[in-house]
Amino acid sequence: MKTIRNKFALLAIVIAGLTTAYAQDPLPSWNDGKAKQSIVEFVAKVTKEGSPDFVPAPERIATFDNDGTLWAEQPVPVQLFFALDRVKALASQHPEWKTKEPFASLLKGDVKAALAGGERAMLEIIVATHAGMTTAEFEQIVKDWLATAKHPKFKKPYNACVYQPMIELLAYLRANGVKTFIVSGGGIEFMRPWAEKAYGIPPEQVVGSSIKTKFEMRDGKPVLVRLPEINFIDDKAGKPVGINHHIGRRPVMAFGNSDGDKEMLEYTQGGSGARFELLVLHDDAAREYAYGPAKGLPDVKLGAFTPALYEQTKKDGWTVVSMKDDWKRVFAFEN
Amino acid sequence: MKTIRNKFALLAIVIAGLTTAYAQDPLPSWNDGKAKQSIVEFVAKVTKEGSPDFVPAPERIATFDNDGTLWAEQPVPVQLFFALDRVKALASQHPEWKTKEPFASLLKGDVKAALAGGERAMLEIIVATHAGMTTAEFEQIVKDWLATAKHPKFKKPYNACVYQPMIELLAYLRANGVKTFIVSGGGIEFMRPWAEKAYGIPPEQVVGSSIKTKFEMRDGKPVLVRLPEINFIDDKAGKPVGINHHIGRRPVMAFGNSDGDKEMLEYTQGGSGARFELLVLHDDAAREYAYGPAKGLPDVKLGAFTPALYEQTKKDGWTVVSMKDDWKRVFAFEN
Repeated sequence: MKTIRNKFALLAIVIAGLTTAYAQDPLPSWNDGKAKQSIVEFVAKVTKEGSPDFVPAPERIATFDNDGTLWAEQPVPVQLFFALDRVKALASQHPEWKTKEPFASLLKGDVKAALAGGERAMLEIIVATHAGMTTAEFEQIVKDWLATAKHPKFKKPYNACVYQPMIELLAYLRANGVKTFIVSGGGIEFMRPWAEKAYGIPPEQVVGSSIKTKFEMRDGKPVLVRLPEINFIDDKAGKPVGINHHIGRRPVMAFGNSDGDKEMLEYTQGGSGARFELLVLHDDAAREYAYGPAKGLPDVKLGAFTPALYEQTKKDGWTVVSMKDDWKRVFAFEN
Repeated sequence: MKTIRNKFALLAIVIAGLTTAYAQDPLPSWNDGKAKQSIVEFVAKVTKEGSPDFVPAPERIATFDNDGTLWAEQPVPVQLFFALDRVKALASQHPEWKTKEPFASLLKGDVKAALAGGERAMLEIIVATHAGMTTAEFEQIVKDWLATAKHPKFKKPYNACVYQPMIELLAYLRANGVKTFIVSGGGIEFMRPWAEKAYGIPPEQVVGSSIKTKFEMRDGKPVLVRLPEINFIDDKAGKPVGINHHIGRRPVMAFGNSDGDKEMLEYTQGGSGARFELLVLHDDAAREYAYGPAKGLPDVKLGAFTPALYEQTKKDGWTVVSMKDDWKRVFAFEN
């Protein structure tokens, strides 16, 4: 009798423990495994006062790439869909686009031909669709577009195509005194209008590529006008530059998914004390896309997680997240 | 007897009230007056939920000029003293400076002659003293300099020559959910090494002028090298541009002291809803310097509070702080 009672007591303790653990799991969309474990262990050691790896709260800076790290970037980066729709919307004001590249190809729906012009074609598209208005007008254009545009595969608004495990991760880090920043090759003014609601990241914690702006009085009102001139490209070796310019501190944690994030992770790792680097590997064709280099996956042009980068993760001890294996679910809209 | 007792009771209540008011005054270095009152009233209305002027906490952005607004900028801006000391320190490595302007004049102690070369001379001094090293090395140079350099009038370290009433104001605003930023014409990397300790403003909330940097591997270590090329001048019409670039939101409050801050205050005022603009008037030759335009004070070249700006404060309803009349004390080191 005593033994049975003891067993019940033990069972009750175990159940209580499990319930508590379940209720307290701050990363419920992550499967248990090395990736989740590496995150939780890192956060525990840098937040524990007296630990040799303790990092004071003001220095707990985490930087996140956006395209392919926080939201879907396939079949093409979302901002390119935005630019395409803007070209269509503005075409009636630009009859010359019917015969002028890259616009002619774009209007025929041939993105590949349009982008064949390389960086110059891309720049022409950006200037035509992202400049000439005030910053407030551009913000409204982005908001209006997001309210109606849908992802071609998921049939959801683009800002619903954010990765649920990463949303949980952002909240978990903030709950542990970590300041979360976006550091993206995407346009800073393209991300700010929706990043606060989608990620809990305010405009002042968004770092991205930008065009120049100019202060002007328009009808007696002070405005900033967006100029047809690139200011900064926040990609590859530009990311550490953008981080230093906006944040002024080396991150303690950095998260990416491609070659464009390599220097950001290297810069993070180069700091003294405990550091954490993570890359998301897109290997889930069923729930999202598969375009990573590992496991015989095809290597894709944009946002490529190249075989060389995969080798580097092993050499440098960076955490690799397999979307397929490490994420219980990818999107909040999954059942 | 009863009357006397009542009087004592009343006196006790009055004293208790005064004591509480004194203990709770978050701005003890400010004299009671219109300037202090305008600040306190504004903060009360934007933080009161349900008030027509209520501003949600994430939108409570306040931007502060640095030179002449948060710390002394006379007889010349502190960063110029830093550059002069760097020229002296580096002179032995540059024998050609003995005959080359603007360095020759600087080394003779003739700042006026050195700066006669205008913007180009200034740029040469900046490049010679602020570029060529890594960002981490530059940070250390600034810290080492601040540890020994003294203000020529006050005989104190420069970072002790910060205005005590503004230190209290920064803390008071933060206690009311306002996010405080520096937006200065000074070098962003010159301010960051000491701004957090002096003002409670972390590196990521410092906006300033900058030179370009480049990501590099040096001896296998990822570093950012400071290049001899101007990236951005955060002054006058550049301030709204810098604010939008770094913060991405129009400030609700803006604080300055000169023509260099005019556009920042205009941009702030141009937003919808309640806004607050303030300029510090330097009219206190005894405790600091007198170089404002009002009350017949001399108009000074650098950081000028011009007569036209003074007129604008009246037209636009900006608060003007008289250092002499509105500040009980200027520096913490005053007895």
